[in-house]
Amino acid sequence: MTLLMFSGDYDKAMVALILANTARDMNIEVTIFFAFWGLFLLRDPEKVTSEDKTSYEKMFSLMTPKGPEELPLSKMNFSGLGKQMLLGMMKDDEAPKLIDFLEGARKKGVKFYGCKLSMEIMGFKKEELLPELEVVTANDYIEEAMNSQIQLFI
Amino acid sequence: MTLLMFSGDYDKAMVALILANTARDMNIEVTIFFAFWGLFLLRDPEKVTSEDKTSYEKMFSLMTPKGPEELPLSKMNFSGLGKQMLLGMMKDDEAPKLIDFLEGARKKGVKFYGCKLSMEIMGFKKEELLPELEVVTANDYIEEAMNSQIQLFI
Amino acid sequence: MTLLMFSGDYDKAMVALILANTARDMNIEVTIFFAFWGLFLLRDPEKVTSEDKTSYEKMFSLMTPKGPEELPLSKMNFSGLGKQMLLGMMKDDEAPKLIDFLEGARKKGVKFYGCKLSMEIMGFKKEELLPELEVVTANDYIEEAMNSQIQLFI
Repeated sequence: MTLLMFSGDYDKAMVALILANTARDMNIEVTIFFAFWGLFLLRDPEKVTSEDKTSYEKMFSLMTPKGPEELPLSKMNFSGLGKQMLLGMMKDDEAPKLIDFLEGARKKGVKFYGCKLSMEIMGFKKEELLPELEVVTANDYIEEAMNSQIQLFI
Repeated sequence: MTLLMFSGDYDKAMVALILANTARDMNIEVTIFFAFWGLFLLRDPEKVTSEDKTSYEKMFSLMTPKGPEELPLSKMNFSGLGKQMLLGMMKDDEAPKLIDFLEGARKKGVKFYGCKLSMEIMGFKKEELLPELEVVTANDYIEEAMNSQIQLFI
Repeated sequence: MTLLMFSGDYDKAMVALILANTARDMNIEVTIFFAFWGLFLLRDPEKVTSEDKTSYEKMFSLMTPKGPEELPLSKMNFSGLGKQMLLGMMKDDEAPKLIDFLEGARKKGVKFYGCKLSMEIMGFKKEELLPELEVVTANDYIEEAMNSQIQLFI
């Protein structure tokens, strides 16, 4: 299974990671290719840097979500209120949080690929993101996708 | 064909159902797996209940679209104005409405799967949704998708 | 590879066209099926017409983006400010613009399909769009997708 994670939304990231974890439990190989806003999910809030960045990149880095728990909802975010409601409902059901699904995916051996071009444009350094991230090109994604049975753009 | 219907938008639901109907006419098996906001499409406005729901779930149930015709557009919704414009253009062309495509899909034997975890989190009961809905897990979706020739995340 | 380009966003169109160009460079056949908002990408700003259009279609034609460079971002558009930031970062990196990727796709022989139903509803005439566009039905898309190794809904 190869997921192209383009979106930087809490709810979409949750679906992607639930699918990735479930597929790994079924012994299916999983690669997630993070591009554009999807890279926000992999940011480590402790390692945000503005070194070697242009002014646009610095501004962008500051204005955008730093890591999984800061991601907004794709819908009904209402400046965070909708997200609080969703988190509240998840807590009532004792459902794991996004960060737990991310940890699960790391432990279960999901492959994390980051889009080189997106990282260059947005000015993200490898050190600011998840340590196991491999930086690859669109070419690498397509090769991987050609050999996958499930491909989704999320 | 296996569609993962995540979005709760009128226009995206329309595309999903047009694809589903067309594929059935071509004698292709079709499953739609409804997760998160996608479940709104399957709500029966007559059967909304707040029984056995937490306060968050009650609030959520009230604030969200009840059935196909209440879904907003993914873009240019302009508090409903954009949707009226689209509906107006559709009427001028005598194009069927979303609810007609949904009825078509039911008659043509599209399989409706609902994501168990999403239903638990959002507090939707089986009785509030389309009667033919089967409640399944991410595991069931992946098995189905592995054996499909077309998989889309909508 | 068969892409269903539903969205009319600058960033999503960029991903779609980068994938299309890369796949063509790898000698993979590529078809992009443009539906709904995706058709905005193919509008020629010089050929916008209001002839033979209903009032809704005229209004719609005026209010929506005319061609690739007018598309908004899917996120953080901030009435155009976010897009300027992204374009600024792209310029700093000497990355090509959306219109360059579109030209590339045309030269490399990507097949452009336009959804007949969407064009009828939105009132777009063939002459207003990219000259190589072939107008096809959902049926044609599904046939093409059934024979593709990669299918994405963007």
